[in-house]
Order: sequence, then C-alpha cells, then structure tokens
Amino acid sequence: MSQYAAPLADMRFVLFDVLEADRVLGRLPAFAEHGREIYDAVLEEAARFTGQVLAPLNPTGDREGCTFEDGRVTTPAGFKEAYRQFVEGGWAGLVAEPEYGGQGMPETIGAAIKEMLDSANLSWGNYPLLSHGACEALKHVAEDWQREVFLRPIVEGRWTGTMCLTEPHCGTDLGLLKTRAEPGPDGTWRIVGTKIFITGGEHDMAENIVHLVLARLPDAPPGTRGISLFIVPKFKVGRDGRMGERNAVHCGSIEHKMGIKASATCVMNFDGAEGYLIGEPHKGLAAMFIMMNTARLAVGLQGLGLIERAYQNALAYARDRLQMRALTGPKRPDKPADPIIVHPDIRRMLLTQKAIAEGGRALAYYAYLQEDLKQRATDEATRQRADDLVSFLTPIVKGVLTELANECTYHAVQILGGHGYIAEWGQEQLARDARITTIYEGTTQIQALDLLGRKILQLKGPGLQAFLAEIGAFCESSAGNPALAEFVAPLGRLAKEWGELTLEIGAKAQRNPDEMGAAAVDYLHYAGYVAIAYFWAREIAALGDHHGAEFADAKRGTARFYFARILPRTATHAAAIRAGSEVLMAMPEAAFG
Amino acid sequence: MSQYAAPLADMRFVLFDVLEADRVLGRLPAFAEHGREIYDAVLEEAARFTGQVLAPLNPTGDREGCTFEDGRVTTPAGFKEAYRQFVEGGWAGLVAEPEYGGQGMPETIGAAIKEMLDSANLSWGNYPLLSHGACEALKHVAEDWQREVFLRPIVEGRWTGTMCLTEPHCGTDLGLLKTRAEPGPDGTWRIVGTKIFITGGEHDMAENIVHLVLARLPDAPPGTRGISLFIVPKFKVGRDGRMGERNAVHCGSIEHKMGIKASATCVMNFDGAEGYLIGEPHKGLAAMFIMMNTARLAVGLQGLGLIERAYQNALAYARDRLQMRALTGPKRPDKPADPIIVHPDIRRMLLTQKAIAEGGRALAYYAYLQEDLKQRATDEATRQRADDLVSFLTPIVKGVLTELANECTYHAVQILGGHGYIAEWGQEQLARDARITTIYEGTTQIQALDLLGRKILQLKGPGLQAFLAEIGAFCESSAGNPALAEFVAPLGRLAKEWGELTLEIGAKAQRNPDEMGAAAVDYLHYAGYVAIAYFWAREIAALGDHHGAEFADAKRGTARFYFARILPRTATHAAAIRAGSEVLMAMPEAAFG
Repeated sequence: MSQYAAPLADMRFVLFDVLEADRVLGRLPAFAEHGREIYDAVLEEAARFTGQVLAPLNPTGDREGCTFEDGRVTTPAGFKEAYRQFVEGGWAGLVAEPEYGGQGMPETIGAAIKEMLDSANLSWGNYPLLSHGACEALKHVAEDWQREVFLRPIVEGRWTGTMCLTEPHCGTDLGLLKTRAEPGPDGTWRIVGTKIFITGGEHDMAENIVHLVLARLPDAPPGTRGISLFIVPKFKVGRDGRMGERNAVHCGSIEHKMGIKASATCVMNFDGAEGYLIGEPHKGLAAMFIMMNTARLAVGLQGLGLIERAYQNALAYARDRLQMRALTGPKRPDKPADPIIVHPDIRRMLLTQKAIAEGGRALAYYAYLQEDLKQRATDEATRQRADDLVSFLTPIVKGVLTELANECTYHAVQILGGHGYIAEWGQEQLARDARITTIYEGTTQIQALDLLGRKILQLKGPGLQAFLAEIGAFCESSAGNPALAEFVAPLGRLAKEWGELTLEIGAKAQRNPDEMGAAAVDYLHYAGYVAIAYFWAREIAALGDHHGAEFADAKRGTARFYFARILPRTATHAAAIRAGSEVLMAMPEAAFG
Repeated sequence: MSQYAAPLADMRFVLFDVLEADRVLGRLPAFAEHGREIYDAVLEEAARFTGQVLAPLNPTGDREGCTFEDGRVTTPAGFKEAYRQFVEGGWAGLVAEPEYGGQGMPETIGAAIKEMLDSANLSWGNYPLLSHGACEALKHVAEDWQREVFLRPIVEGRWTGTMCLTEPHCGTDLGLLKTRAEPGPDGTWRIVGTKIFITGGEHDMAENIVHLVLARLPDAPPGTRGISLFIVPKFKVGRDGRMGERNAVHCGSIEHKMGIKASATCVMNFDGAEGYLIGEPHKGLAAMFIMMNTARLAVGLQGLGLIERAYQNALAYARDRLQMRALTGPKRPDKPADPIIVHPDIRRMLLTQKAIAEGGRALAYYAYLQEDLKQRATDEATRQRADDLVSFLTPIVKGVLTELANECTYHAVQILGGHGYIAEWGQEQLARDARITTIYEGTTQIQALDLLGRKILQLKGPGLQAFLAEIGAFCESSAGNPALAEFVAPLGRLAKEWGELTLEIGAKAQRNPDEMGAAAVDYLHYAGYVAIAYFWAREIAALGDHHGAEFADAKRGTARFYFARILPRTATHAAAIRAGSEVLMAMPEAAFG
C-alpha cells in the first residue's frame, strides 16, 4: 500500500532558498511577527497530520466511497474524525485573518500545507478546499452581518462552504443558468432550481453547510450580466448567528464517478430555500470569480500533490521490484535480477515526475507568494504587479499542473505494470483522482482561453510582460555564472520565442478570433513548460554549499533531464500554434462522421 | 448512454480501397473462393451482433464486474448468453482453418471483426481473444492428438484458452519463473505453482478452459532457456477427447482493477495439476511467443476499438451540447448557445481521435494483411517479406495504438467535461479500460525494446527496410500527383529522417547499450506517427470519384489535420532520441529521493 511522507526538504528549499518567502513575507506588516521557526513548525506538524491521519484514509475512502440515503450523505469511515482533528488543530482557519478567528498565516505557507493534504487524500481535501473559497468570497463582498454570521464558523471549521454554479444544461456557460431567486417577505430570497456537480454539497462532517449560489433575480437581464450571488445555508441562521430550522435545500443524489469517490459530488435541489443576497444584484459572477480563482490555484496544487504522491509510490516500487538485468550488465549480481530503476525508460518516467513535481512546486508556490503580496503589500505598485502576475499565472498553474498530473500519474501506473492497474497498490486511484482536475473549476480549455484570450490578448498581458521581464532580468544577472549557462541559454531563447508567438497569435487573432481558440491550449502548455524551466533555473541558482553535494547533484541532474527531455516539447506546441485554425475549422460539421 | 455503430464505411474503405485486401487475398489459394460479397456479409452481421448484443452489456458489465465465490467466477449478467450467441453464430472459429472446424476467413477480415468486438465490449472480447492465441500456439507446436483433443473445441467455442505466464515476482522477466512440472506416472506432468493476472483463468461461459502454462522441468537450465509449455485443462481430457474429472488447478481470487472489470483477472493455483508437454522441453518460450505475438496485435486492435467508440460518444455529445457562442459569432442563433463542436479546441480533440482511429485502422489492418500473406502466400519470398513486416509492425501496432488509445479516451472524457467523469455517460469507462492496454501482453517499454533493440538493431531491421522501401516507392509513384504533394513531401522527409535516426542510435548503442534503452520509447512513438502518416497518404491516394465529395472532403480534412497538428510531434521525439542516455543514467539511484 502506498505511503506518503511530505517532501519537507524540497518544500523548504523552494519556499526559503528559491523564493526566499520568509524574507519577502517578513517585509509585510501582516506577517512581521512570523519567521522561519514558526513556518517550519507548521510544516512539520502538517506533515505529521497528513502522513499519519489522512494518507491511510485515502485507499479506504476510495473503496468505500460516499453513500447516499434519504437525502443524507455519509463520508467514508474515519473522514469525520479526521476532520475533527483538522479543526481542533486549527488548520481550518490557517490562512484566514485573525479578526475572523483565523491563524493569519500567509497563503504561501498554506499552499505547502494544501499540497500535503492533496497528496495525502485528495477527496478529503475537497471539503476544506471549498470552505477556503467561500471565505474569500464572503470576505470581499459580503455585508458585515453576513461576514460575522457565516465567515467565522467556516474559518473555525464548524461549518463548511460550497460553490453552487453548475446546472444540468450549463457548466462552462453560466449565462444559461436558470436557478431563480424570488423575493421573500423579509428581505430574504427564495431560491428555486437545481444545481449539479456540487462538491461537498451534503456531508456529515460539519454542523452546517453554507452554499454560495448563483441565481437570477426576477428582473435580471439575460446572460452573465443577470446573475446574482446568494448565501443559502443548510440550516437557517439568524442575524444573531443562531442556527434555526432546516432550509429547503436538499441533496437529491450523489454521482458515481471515475475517482474522488470519497468527495461527495451532489445534485442539490433548491425548493424555495431561504437565501441572502451577497454583494450587488446582477453582479454575482464577479463575486463568484473571487472564489473561483482561489479554487483554481488550489486545483493546481491538487495536480502537484498527486504528482508527488504518485512519484513516491513509483519510486519505492522501482527500487524494490527486481526484473531483468541492466542493458550494460548486472548491477546487483547478488540478486536474481536488477531493480527496475536501472532501466533507462523507467528512469525517464521517474524523472519526468520528479522534474514536474519539483519545478511545478516552485511555480505554484511562487503564484501563492504573489497572492500574499497582492493582498498584503503596503505599496500599490507591488500589489498591482503581484495582482497582474497571479492572475496571469492562475490559469497556468491550474491548467498545466493538472494536465501534467494526468501524465505523471499515468507514468506512475506504468512503472508498476500490472500491479499499477490493480487497486491493491493505490497507484490507479491517483490516476482516477487526477482525471477530474483538468475538468472542475474550469476545464483546461477554459484556462487556456482565460490565459491567452483574456489575460494576454484582451488585457494586453501585463502579467506576461512582468513575468517575461523577470525571466529576462534573471538571465541577465546569471550571464556570468558558468553553473547556469546550460539552463540560461535555452531559457532566454524560449522566453524570446514566447513573446514572438504571442505577437504572431495576436496579429492573426485580430483578423480571425478562431486563431486564438485554435492556439490557446498549445499556448498554455508552451507557457507552462517555459515557466517551469525558469523555476528550474532558479532552483539551480539557489543551490548553496549548505545544501550538500547529494542534494545539489540531484537538483542538477533533474534540471538537466527537464531541459533535455521535457522542454523540447515546446517545439511541438509552437508548431501546433503556428499551424493555425484552418485545419481545425475547415472541416464541415457533417464530415466528422 | 453510449451507443456503438461499427464504422462500416471506413472499414470497407480501408480494407478494399486502401489495402485492396479482396484483391490481395483473392490471389491466395486459401481464400480464392472468397470475395467482397462474403466479406461484406460477415462485416455487416458482426456490426449487428456487436452493436445490438455486446455494446449494451458494456456499461452493465463494468458496473456489475465479475464476482468470485468458492473458486468460481461469475461473469456479469448477459455475458454468458452473448457468448452462446457468439458461438452459435460461428464467430469463435472465424479465422481458424476449416480442418479444425473453423470458418477459414482471413485474419485481415478477422481484424475488423475484432475491432468491433473491442469497441463494443472490451472486457467481453477478452474471453475469445485469449482463445485465438491458444489456437495459434496449439496449431504450430502441439502434437496431433493434442490438436485433435484441444484445438477443435476451442475453435468451436465450446472451450476457451488462457496464457499462464506471469507469477507474483515475475512479469516481464520470465526467466525468473518458478512454477515447476514434475513427471507423472503416465507421461503426463504435475504442474505446481501460482500464476497471477490470468485473463479468463476462470469463468462461467464455457464447458472447459485450456490453460497454456509455462513451467520448468526438473532438469531445466536456469533462465529463459529452461522454460517449457504445458496444456493444463480445467477438466482433464482423455486422448479420446472425453472430459473427465476436475483438474487440480483452481482460481484463488480475482483482482480488483481500474477497468475491464468484467474481464476476470485471476490468480491461478496449480496444485499438482495434470499437464501435457507441448513442443520440445525447455523450448516453451518460443512457443509462447507465437501466442504472444497474436495477442499483441490483438491488443493493438483493442486500442483502436476504444478510440473509435470514445470518438463516437464524444462526437455525439459535441453536436448535442449547447454551451457558449462560437468565437466568430453565433452559429445557431435560434438556440440559446452553439453546440460545442464549433469551438476550435473541441475540434482539435475530436480530430485527434478521428485521425488516429482512421489512420491507425489502416496501419493495423495492413499488419494483419501481412499476417495472412505470411501464413498463406504460396511463394517463399512473399511469405518472408510479410513475416519481416508483421514482426516489425507488431510492436508498433501494439505499443502505439494502445498509448494513443489512452490519449484519445482522455480527450473524449475532456469533451464531455464533468459528464465525462461520471459513470452515466460511459466515457470514463473507456479511459479506465484503455489503461490496461499499454501494460498487458508486454508493456509499451517492452514493445519499444522489441522494436528497436531486437527487430531493428539485433536483426538488422529487414522489416524496417521493407517498410521504408514501400514508403519510398509510394512517394516516388505519387510524385506527379498534385493532390498528394502536401502529404508526400513531409512523409518523404520523415522517412529519410527515420533511417538517419536509426543509424545514429545504432552507432551510439554499439558503444553504450543504454543509448538504445534511452531512445526506445521515443523511437516507438516516432515510428508510429510516421507509419500512420504513410497510411493517411495512402488513404488520400485511394480516394476515387465513387466515394463522393463528402467522404473525400472528410478524408482530406482529417489528413491535413494529422499532418499539421499531430505529425509535428515527431520533432519532439527526435529531439528526445538525440538527447541521449546521459541525462537518464547519470543520476545516482540515491538522488531520486
């Protein structure tokens, strides 16, 4: 069975050596009292909780799944108790502000903890994940009484949150949504409609569930400009915070899914449920996007967490399994065969996972560091730059790390051969769990359109400009460093090509918007590979004598692998981008079959 | 729920227009009495059986799975009855020789039927698949009485066959196997050992099961040169063919797997079971390879079948699902949104599936046509060339079509979004089922080593030479054809590069065998993409006026997509091949983590 031990050494290296997060965060008044010591303690405690409590519940949760009966969802054995420990440990409000009962830790540290949760038990991690998104939305757009009544219990972990967007006929296209809000007698609203694919819509782990629901007011204009956001609690709550009677929102069924079987995916029926408008009428989508963006970065971490867990499992197997001799002659003549880690292609698959995990970790944590700067920096220019960067990086982190999680868990299954395909080893579960991550919170296609269409072409790409400038500055400052030359040269070339490709697409898209749509997904991958290359180069630049020769050799070896065997994929993506939209759009619909 | 309709028009186009199989087969005395009419009738009847009988049992079979109790395996509801119909329809012995009770149809036609079975119900198809492999082995190496007693009932479908190779500690490395054969009193053998991952090792669909088992004789030399092959029937059989008492071979359990849940994967315990040696002592592996090669081509067809089924399902959804407007403005202003097939990236994913299915179909059927020529051609030179080609193409068909089946079923899930991830639509099952195909009957890694290490570098590549010569001749003969120029030019370039890459690897591998191992999987993919490009060019060359403008436009549009968006992947694979083994092998084992 698969074990999980949080990769603390690499997490610390990325956080404190590569990103210098302690130094950067220490300059922000909000975190002035923190420091390495407290961060280290939090990381270690989280490693213990996730490794000892959550990880063992991952295969059992998968096997048992959630069960649904009479409107009630029961989570697998042990889930509720683990949640109790999570709340008691203060983890629920880790990154929430102290004024709402939170621990006030930086998002950057929270990201490392989230990665651990996701590695240990993705399904379980989905329950607190949505709560975090709900907190963000409530914090930014709710009225004072709403924040007081709903935010604090979520921060404390007594209640959890959901995002209720999708309906049977609309997922990506929220403009089509039909759920409606009718005025109630007392300023509240009656919500009527059906929502599907609601993660954690019903469960047995918390006292109350706070649904954030998109619905239309009676006078709403059609499309996305007529959508409002409502709080709809499972149990009604008075302005005094007291829980009252059961609200008219019920779970109608749960889905039978490929994976994340312990994460309840609910059909939610709103039969005139009492709801409270949050923010302005018809402006719900903007509010929901606050929540959505938080969730998107978090799903990127899910991808990262799965890659790390699958790698640990595959590596243990590759060291243990004896099969065939090395092509260059026996490496363990004392054994009946060599461990399969001697075979070049096993190493290729392992190194792919390791390179993506460690490079992707720096990319993801960097994005969260920008989130902290955006929220907490004291000067406007820093906040703006961080905002540009994080909004640019969010679709990359989400889109690329989840796609790569599917690739990496695929390799991890392959390394185990037939044993990878059976439940016993826990490896196939990771591949099944990974499959949802490129779909929920916006498919890869949506991330790609968000990146290229919105963030770059429409908004003129301030995030891309800032990021390319940062890469340029790094390349320049590293020019004289012989240890970096092998990485800086290709990185500089690709950063230049990235800019050129962007201009090319921009010019073509002005004449034909399908050019943007045809290039977007390949552009997303291209951006991801170059971004990860940048962070690999920074990892090598951050190596110091105190890391020891073994750690440094592993980093250099993995970086070289990434540059030699993964980064050349950019050539195929560039070719696909340049192939244009004609080959996609010329086929008449009838010709598809 | 997903429907399946056999793609008869494309199958006929590939068989009769592209490969001219009726003409080629018609020249062989074994098939002189056949012709288009009989082939068409068989294809149509198979389309009916697979679409109406097998396809509806696919989701129910997945849901129900096989059950195991007291040593007995029960297949899902309807499986046994479908098998009865299959046998009654004469399908079990379709390609077997009439002298053993078969229908004597060509393997090429059998391949199209197998594709249908696999599209309709991969799990179900596994039961007859292994029988086919057992027939091949019995036909070639068994003694007369063994053929008479065991082959005929399998051909008739009354009994099924298995391949018992894998043991808990050895899968790929059969040299390690421990199952032993002790001499019995009567010239028979007593087989003792445990085999795992035995497909169809126990089930309820046939009267008897004939296990072909690898085991060691008492005086066997170690390693692969000491392995013998035995027939071990579930019920003992006398030389008169009469079934006797239960043999001491029993199913100990079945595996809980990611997919193919209705295909029983058994642990088989041989507790002194009576067995009959087939072929010469210690030469079992060669005999088993006859069976294995048959099975490998067949698993390639499984990949093809899954791609086709997933494509049909995704296409239906993409035409039906309304979501967002086309980037160039509404295409269905009468509807609340456009069908998602208007979006460029949905088209990219659909066209990837369509291009791989149709190009891969020609590749796979071509390999089977070589199999017919190898078995039935009257002149030695034709048989030898066909043998070279099929042995060269087998790892490509198996390795590449199964890897691409994973990619294509992945896209197919993505097109359905959240609906792709839930069981209801049948799409996620195809992705789970596909995941085994790159593992069983030799992983992709083993196919790659077989192709590059054995078939090309060790055997000096007569198959590759014949295939490249064929591509060269095609390019030359098409030089003056303007309709083909856009395909022939890149094809010629890549065929040349393929030869160069092969020489480069060969030279490097002489100095360091890890160079072969490091290049093999990328080389396999490279080979697959160029081979499919060749068959796409041939499809375009085969278009005639009688196909109609719509069919021809669809073919040309799909071919253009393949050359513009898929074939450039060869550049990345070439770069990876040229990156060499150093980046894989330099990392010390300890540095992996």
